[in-house]
Amino acid sequence: MTNHHHDSIRAVEWVNGTLKLLDQRLLPQQRTYVVLENARDTAQAITDMVVRGAPAIGVTAAYGVVLAARACYARSPASWKHDIEIDLEVLARSRPTAVNLFWALDRMRGHLTNVSGDPYEPLLAEARRIHEEDIAANRHMGQLGAALIAGSSQRPCAVLTHCNTGSLATGGYGTALGVIRAAYAAGGINQVFADETRPWMQGARLTAWELVEDNIPVTLVVEGAGAHLMKQGAVRWVIVGADRIAANGDTANKIGTYNLAVVARHHGVKFMVVAPTSTVDMTLSNGEGIPIEIRSTDEILSHAGKRVAAQGAAAWNPAFDVTPAELIDAIVTERGVVLSPTPQKMADMMSGI
Amino acid sequence: MTNHHHDSIRAVEWVNGTLKLLDQRLLPQQRTYVVLENARDTAQAITDMVVRGAPAIGVTAAYGVVLAARACYARSPASWKHDIEIDLEVLARSRPTAVNLFWALDRMRGHLTNVSGDPYEPLLAEARRIHEEDIAANRHMGQLGAALIAGSSQRPCAVLTHCNTGSLATGGYGTALGVIRAAYAAGGINQVFADETRPWMQGARLTAWELVEDNIPVTLVVEGAGAHLMKQGAVRWVIVGADRIAANGDTANKIGTYNLAVVARHHGVKFMVVAPTSTVDMTLSNGEGIPIEIRSTDEILSHAGKRVAAQGAAAWNPAFDVTPAELIDAIVTERGVVLSPTPQKMADMMSGI
Repeated sequence: MTNHHHDSIRAVEWVNGTLKLLDQRLLPQQRTYVVLENARDTAQAITDMVVRGAPAIGVTAAYGVVLAARACYARSPASWKHDIEIDLEVLARSRPTAVNLFWALDRMRGHLTNVSGDPYEPLLAEARRIHEEDIAANRHMGQLGAALIAGSSQRPCAVLTHCNTGSLATGGYGTALGVIRAAYAAGGINQVFADETRPWMQGARLTAWELVEDNIPVTLVVEGAGAHLMKQGAVRWVIVGADRIAANGDTANKIGTYNLAVVARHHGVKFMVVAPTSTVDMTLSNGEGIPIEIRSTDEILSHAGKRVAAQGAAAWNPAFDVTPAELIDAIVTERGVVLSPTPQKMADMMSGI
Repeated sequence: MTNHHHDSIRAVEWVNGTLKLLDQRLLPQQRTYVVLENARDTAQAITDMVVRGAPAIGVTAAYGVVLAARACYARSPASWKHDIEIDLEVLARSRPTAVNLFWALDRMRGHLTNVSGDPYEPLLAEARRIHEEDIAANRHMGQLGAALIAGSSQRPCAVLTHCNTGSLATGGYGTALGVIRAAYAAGGINQVFADETRPWMQGARLTAWELVEDNIPVTLVVEGAGAHLMKQGAVRWVIVGADRIAANGDTANKIGTYNLAVVARHHGVKFMVVAPTSTVDMTLSNGEGIPIEIRSTDEILSHAGKRVAAQGAAAWNPAFDVTPAELIDAIVTERGVVLSPTPQKMADMMSGI
């Protein structure tokens, strides 16, 4: 079932020399694709949230570098490595918070310096590796997270997740949703509650869609219901993804995550962050340095192009918040599980100790 | 400004022998009124949220009893006091959580037993008294709450409110929003953040509308942003209304309130509940006995009649949650302010000590 699902939905695909993105703004009502042929349009698609989710943004940016390299090399085989810097900069400016974007650009930049001749095939191969490694990381994190849930009790439990962290948000399979898939298959989870996730409704539109496709029972709640839900006692874990994790374990993720972490701690509910190491930014000692994107107020004030809020009202629309490490019980990456994260434990995990 | 606003918007009005409700489901885009001539339609209007807000529901139910009494007396001057019980029952079943509904019905029932002859004028006078007393209570609570805010610091502060507790939710002026109006006028508040309040968007549609009309600066946030907002340090108070307050101070209010209370305590932000004593249910020793209405999943899964969530997804839609007294710094009623509520302090306040 999980395999079927993973194979049937692809947020990011390289097809016939172009980058094909599933337009996530229209899901699940419409399944429309956007086909991109240059880096500038790719950056715009990231900004406009045609594709979203930190790992998926990283994979998209990697393919965007392939598009950039092909164009630059065609224009000037002599100066393309210099010329491409403008495109790399455009891609880097598409969104500020998810570090996977910069990680993928750095990795592609590192690779292209060694290329001689036509860069298309070697860079495409590298982008494909980034994509495949992300899927493999998700699969592995799924097993690690499922083991953590199984270890916390022998009885199956309900979990609460936020935003979308599935096949749509990643190279495939998912981070937090990958853990949920693996744990559900292993019998550790019997019910999934999903925040609808205002203002973009990634929970209602995307997470619910992925889970329904996988025949995993999903119940949507408004964000305000988190504390009331936890008080009922059914939820044992909150499981979320990440857009950037600092060296001490502080975690930026979709707005509402920090809220959940505070409320989870108050109720004795465990809090798990699931993200590949491409999400870890060891250059930031803590979460205070993570840039938080502030998006358009229209996302809150209107719905489907129609004004909902009263005219004259302002809005504040930070897309992310930062959960301090002390509220996190476990960070799961493809290199292992960090319990009650500290700078030392994070450094050990990153260096493979 | 406040007076102008209070006079211009009336959620509930008795006009030419009928009950006129402003249809709050269509605000602020459309200003449409529903005119009611019998108790059954009045109950349905409450159920369907044409009118909402605990005090406004109480006032509406009181006028509903006038409609019922007129019809029952016209059918049978001999048996109307017996016959009206069915209508009282229908009104009582319209919504379960806000105790103001039952309080108003009990008060009207107590009054009608003493009526001889045509009940229309004496019952209408009693319903009008309930309405006017609610407005007066709001005005007084506004002053008490504003004094509490002024006493907490000399610098003006930002506050966060949830749902709508203004003229639309009450007889007029407002509970929590009444405090905000009074404190803004007194210079104690310089900015109001308002949760948009899913799933009905009372914050975006109603609270923002009332504040814009009053020229009070209002900034909408999604519920998930509460913790992140408080971490910025600007918010000193969370101010909310109530649908039912138990004898120990436990408070049922719009879903998301308990969430806010947990997060406020975590950040050292003060938490104020503002409600008239008609909201206090001294028959319940604590909040566990408060019935929490579970509303239709459609309110979460769809928007304006169009499906938003993935097909096949379930939803859980409790309309209220219960905030335990220990997370509440102050309960403000028209009889006074209860700091850090306990059963004894609540009993003293209710008996006017």
